[in-house]
Amino acid sequence: MKKGDSKNLKTFFNPKSLAIIGASPHPEKVGHIVLNNITSGGYQEEIFLVNPHEQEIDGRKCHADYGSLPRTPELAIICVPAAAAMTLIEPIAEKGTKNILIFSAGFKEVGGEGKEMEEKLASLAEEHSLSVLGPNCLGFINTPAHLNATFGEGIKNSGNLRFISQSGAIATAFFDWSDYTGVGTSDFITLGNKAVMTENEVLEYWLGDAKLKSPLQRKKQEKEGLSRYRPIGLYLESIVNGKKFMQLLEETTKRDPVFILKPGKSAAAKQAMQSHTGAIAGDDAVLEAALRQVGVLRCEGVEDMFDFSRAFAWENAPEGPNVAIVSNAGGPAVISTDLIAEAGLTLASLSPKTHKKLAANLPSASNIHNPIDVLGDALSDRYADAMAAVLAEKSVHALLVILTPQIMTQISETAEIIGKMSKKYQKPIFCSFMGGQAITAGEEILNKFKIPSFRYPERAIRVMGKMWWWHARQIEQKKKKKRIGAAEPTANSLKQSQSFIQRLRESGETALSNFEANSLLAEWNITMPALKAVASEEEAKQFADTYGWPVVLKISSSAILHKTESHAVIKDLATEEELSHAFKQLSVILNKFKLITPNSIIEAQQQIPDGVEVIVGIKHDPSFGNVLLFGAGGTMAELIEDHNLCVAPFSRQTIADLVSHSKINKILVGYRGGAVYNTEALVGVIQRLAQLAESTDAFEEIEINPVIVTIDAAYAVDGRAILKK
Amino acid sequence: MKKGDSKNLKTFFNPKSLAIIGASPHPEKVGHIVLNNITSGGYQEEIFLVNPHEQEIDGRKCHADYGSLPRTPELAIICVPAAAAMTLIEPIAEKGTKNILIFSAGFKEVGGEGKEMEEKLASLAEEHSLSVLGPNCLGFINTPAHLNATFGEGIKNSGNLRFISQSGAIATAFFDWSDYTGVGTSDFITLGNKAVMTENEVLEYWLGDAKLKSPLQRKKQEKEGLSRYRPIGLYLESIVNGKKFMQLLEETTKRDPVFILKPGKSAAAKQAMQSHTGAIAGDDAVLEAALRQVGVLRCEGVEDMFDFSRAFAWENAPEGPNVAIVSNAGGPAVISTDLIAEAGLTLASLSPKTHKKLAANLPSASNIHNPIDVLGDALSDRYADAMAAVLAEKSVHALLVILTPQIMTQISETAEIIGKMSKKYQKPIFCSFMGGQAITAGEEILNKFKIPSFRYPERAIRVMGKMWWWHARQIEQKKKKKRIGAAEPTANSLKQSQSFIQRLRESGETALSNFEANSLLAEWNITMPALKAVASEEEAKQFADTYGWPVVLKISSSAILHKTESHAVIKDLATEEELSHAFKQLSVILNKFKLITPNSIIEAQQQIPDGVEVIVGIKHDPSFGNVLLFGAGGTMAELIEDHNLCVAPFSRQTIADLVSHSKINKILVGYRGGAVYNTEALVGVIQRLAQLAESTDAFEEIEINPVIVTIDAAYAVDGRAILKK
Repeated sequence: MKKGDSKNLKTFFNPKSLAIIGASPHPEKVGHIVLNNITSGGYQEEIFLVNPHEQEIDGRKCHADYGSLPRTPELAIICVPAAAAMTLIEPIAEKGTKNILIFSAGFKEVGGEGKEMEEKLASLAEEHSLSVLGPNCLGFINTPAHLNATFGEGIKNSGNLRFISQSGAIATAFFDWSDYTGVGTSDFITLGNKAVMTENEVLEYWLGDAKLKSPLQRKKQEKEGLSRYRPIGLYLESIVNGKKFMQLLEETTKRDPVFILKPGKSAAAKQAMQSHTGAIAGDDAVLEAALRQVGVLRCEGVEDMFDFSRAFAWENAPEGPNVAIVSNAGGPAVISTDLIAEAGLTLASLSPKTHKKLAANLPSASNIHNPIDVLGDALSDRYADAMAAVLAEKSVHALLVILTPQIMTQISETAEIIGKMSKKYQKPIFCSFMGGQAITAGEEILNKFKIPSFRYPERAIRVMGKMWWWHARQIEQKKKKKRIGAAEPTANSLKQSQSFIQRLRESGETALSNFEANSLLAEWNITMPALKAVASEEEAKQFADTYGWPVVLKISSSAILHKTESHAVIKDLATEEELSHAFKQLSVILNKFKLITPNSIIEAQQQIPDGVEVIVGIKHDPSFGNVLLFGAGGTMAELIEDHNLCVAPFSRQTIADLVSHSKINKILVGYRGGAVYNTEALVGVIQRLAQLAESTDAFEEIEINPVIVTIDAAYAVDGRAILKK
Repeated sequence: MKKGDSKNLKTFFNPKSLAIIGASPHPEKVGHIVLNNITSGGYQEEIFLVNPHEQEIDGRKCHADYGSLPRTPELAIICVPAAAAMTLIEPIAEKGTKNILIFSAGFKEVGGEGKEMEEKLASLAEEHSLSVLGPNCLGFINTPAHLNATFGEGIKNSGNLRFISQSGAIATAFFDWSDYTGVGTSDFITLGNKAVMTENEVLEYWLGDAKLKSPLQRKKQEKEGLSRYRPIGLYLESIVNGKKFMQLLEETTKRDPVFILKPGKSAAAKQAMQSHTGAIAGDDAVLEAALRQVGVLRCEGVEDMFDFSRAFAWENAPEGPNVAIVSNAGGPAVISTDLIAEAGLTLASLSPKTHKKLAANLPSASNIHNPIDVLGDALSDRYADAMAAVLAEKSVHALLVILTPQIMTQISETAEIIGKMSKKYQKPIFCSFMGGQAITAGEEILNKFKIPSFRYPERAIRVMGKMWWWHARQIEQKKKKKRIGAAEPTANSLKQSQSFIQRLRESGETALSNFEANSLLAEWNITMPALKAVASEEEAKQFADTYGWPVVLKISSSAILHKTESHAVIKDLATEEELSHAFKQLSVILNKFKLITPNSIIEAQQQIPDGVEVIVGIKHDPSFGNVLLFGAGGTMAELIEDHNLCVAPFSRQTIADLVSHSKINKILVGYRGGAVYNTEALVGVIQRLAQLAESTDAFEEIEINPVIVTIDAAYAVDGRAILKK
């Protein structure tokens, strides 16, 4: 199997027959636990056992080796240690089995010989077109097929959730949680070291599964109290191929929500991951941008992962941001009101009709304005009246029911009422029963009705906010016409830049001088201030006379990264005296630079009128390809913290969105009645830079710092580029 | 009782006798629930019942009215509706009882007559020196005295936690949670409408309680498995007197942790609070700054409140930031590593000795580097070995134990081991047993041992980070010598500014013109650029000749708030022509301004050399007094979002800290080898402005925008002030 090849996976996860190699009669052995999990779980297809040391186990015949099996199993499950596992791959392939699950640890994650074995495994898989899950994984579960091919407790509840986890332990915690809450899955796949099969093959397989697309199937789910989705939860420590990953998720999120827990923000975590699954993490900011672009929710912790699982499995996302709150407690309602806005939601404004209904049914001391307070002595019927009124209100998109266990509170009865209301009204309901002991009974009833409940209202609100974010994007994407792609670069600029890069490569340089980078930008019709290498004061003066005073003098050298630091730029040279003085000053510095990079020169540059300084850069990410960075420039840049990223492909729309969501955009569009700058021109510059970067795979980094955006134009003042080594 | 008077509170919360007015034999009545809560809870002191319609209830004699009671109860508990309650206050006072608890709703929170009744109640309390708790509250609990004076379930577990809640519902949720976790309290007080008794009286009463200070008592607690603290949890919807509140908390946090849940960030929440307890919220940013200044932890939601309760009740804060992790699961350990740094903690580096110990006791596949992975098949003994090694390591300040329920995991046994380790080693231990059903047994054992455990590791890490933040500040405060106060203002500036303000008051103006404000600043020796009102071009030219070209021309008018918007400032006037042109331009605008404010004039100002623009302002907050704002100025100010607040009193140290924690400080101290600006002078300017504001209570607002900080000095370029109405 090549990475990226998912064609065998239907038989992998739905095998019509399977073999357990290393099946064992000893209860503590993986080979026994797996056998037991598969047979006692109710798997109905053929099972073969392989173990040369046993005649039979639990009344099932044991075969001495894989070759002697009477038929070819669709799936081979290897339960023996790493070294022994390696000797089995070829016999399995020779028998004709294409799917192998390997539990064994001791591969890449231990380094040295383990790493070599894993490389060997990958090449064997490619040679024989094998799909391999693991090694160093917990296996997988196909709940509808009653196949628990793990050495964990497994999942009893069948449901609409799908899961891919690189950690087996996260899986076991999920299994236990599923048992407690009743949240069920269709598939739970643990990837382990991802030697062959990665998240991408699984996602691609799911995308291709016609059954999952059936609207009838979705309707059926909803009738069972589930959401209309087949949500996907991901726990990944590394992303194998970011570009492919994004393409698959872009398609997936059109129909189903996807949420991911992905550690690796800190250096310490990156190190810890390497000793766990051998995963090497990329730049987290790039991942973050990519996920947002394709509408994937990122979990901040394990609690998010569990909360999103339950919410998306059981409720459809709200159709809008308006939330109604019904509570028997003023305090928690007030707290929730505060959090609603922070979560990107709105407290629903109720109509006079609804207020009237509420006033008619609730005691006079109640608060009939949202958040609705049914008071501490509310019995379940009062909850019912309030819920019926707000659920019937058209402008309400979701309901949060808060219950605190006061002395008269009917906890179980209220939960039953909520369950009935949920069936009657097609609107998502979320609950927070607050407390510890007494409320448990209510929670169990809510679970039975498949209504997500949370101990703390802030969790419910966070989940509602995230669901709405996901769905709002989905609506937005449907509305958008096919995004207008970037205009094609002219054949000439393409040809010029390619021969330019070719020349540089031949010279052996990787860092381009400003002069070289600027020439390249000019080839792509990026507007630049006039610029000329000047060898003498006289030449500098001629330049100023030609292009107008004042001018800028500066040193161009591949050794300079931040010019202002090295005092290598002098601006505002308005008179001959100033120019002469500045030229002398720079000449002294130039001589020093020449010792390091002999190609250093002094340049005269046309001084640009007042404008806004921004930075535009493109950097190549090994996993996601080209990444575009845009933000405020100048001395204050670091304080403004205006880092806006997006990942290729770059359409004009993508670029315009990036600019309009930046902090500096506030200034660009006219701040407090100030000047309005030419963002059209800015977007043009960025687009041409993006075209340049995408036209070749030569660049490690290419940057314009600053671009000065004026009222009329956008000037690329200084370019910088580094070629890949 | 006057607000701020706490002298009676010992007998209020520890009464040697009490009367229940409105005691009732009907189970659904508050008067019955309260009677039952008090008698069945085990309260050992004298109880009197008052109810004219009953002879006796549950075998206890009922008295017809308060006056006819045989003795004077120390506490009167009123269980009758609002209007009836009001008729009882004077008879109770006449009998000599000083303490009254009122449950009844229908006061300020309903407005109208209710509000009037509440005002009457407050004035009666003052007249008769009564302490009143409520109205519209749930009552209070004194657990050690077995006194549950609420109409809620109450708290069975006695412990070290103290709680003040403005919401009864938050209390009932806490009671249920306490029942479940075993976290116990000494006092739980619900305030309701705070007509008379507020958080401040309770905090003051606790501060004065000698018993709470006893180190012996604290030692005893620790032996029982509790922390050495008497933590205080607060749920407040309003802060009655911010200044007093801060003083009390400053003292309290020297010994004990305080955490608060306080809604009211959003406009919607402010409105919801008003209909709940009639609370009016102040500026949340001011509260946030004040809490940080006095070392109070702010809860982001209800979960924080419960988590902090459990953690501070059971564990001492870590003595440093270094955390060790022991886990049977790589994934959660990696996730936790990421979060450790975000929480202000550090992953502890273990010594070679500890690594050796771990290597000797753990299987070779384990990760012996922090985070320590004892592997999925770890039994409790492997946890024991790993814990013993890291807890003995000197550099480890806290331990996080993560457990996922894998197939061999000994959940209960491991919990027992953790309990034993906790007794042996004097270091805080936090647990995360992840899952749902299976792990519950382990959690129960951890609760028994009083070890805080959390379903999700991120919660444990958040709590550890907050505990360390609190304790680190405590250590820091102890180190600091008494903060050096601001130098006293000179008698002259004081006198000058007072007569200045006097004159303004007499003129009836509240907004000072720039000219007036600047004159006032000059009185306080705040360095300003030379400034002069100029009536003609000729006068402007003379000014420039005297103070040097270029100069600035601008309009000074109390009608202008943002000068750059109105084009009322022209800078860089370097020649006579430019000056003349600018003067003409401003004259046109001036005439328009004169229509609104006839005192508008044109001023010439010395142009300040290049520097960093900052804003300094002081605003009067009705609850907290003067609040100082400092941050970046100029066009980019809003993008930098550099809002730094602190609340009076303002010592030079406080001001220097405020500046050094700002974002703009990065530029001021020399950014990327750039100029170093005179922050000493800047602190001086801020200090003198603070002295001016504190020397009088005349100002609503006083602001210098901008202060330009140069290499040599700090210039107050423009002042603005508004007097209180």
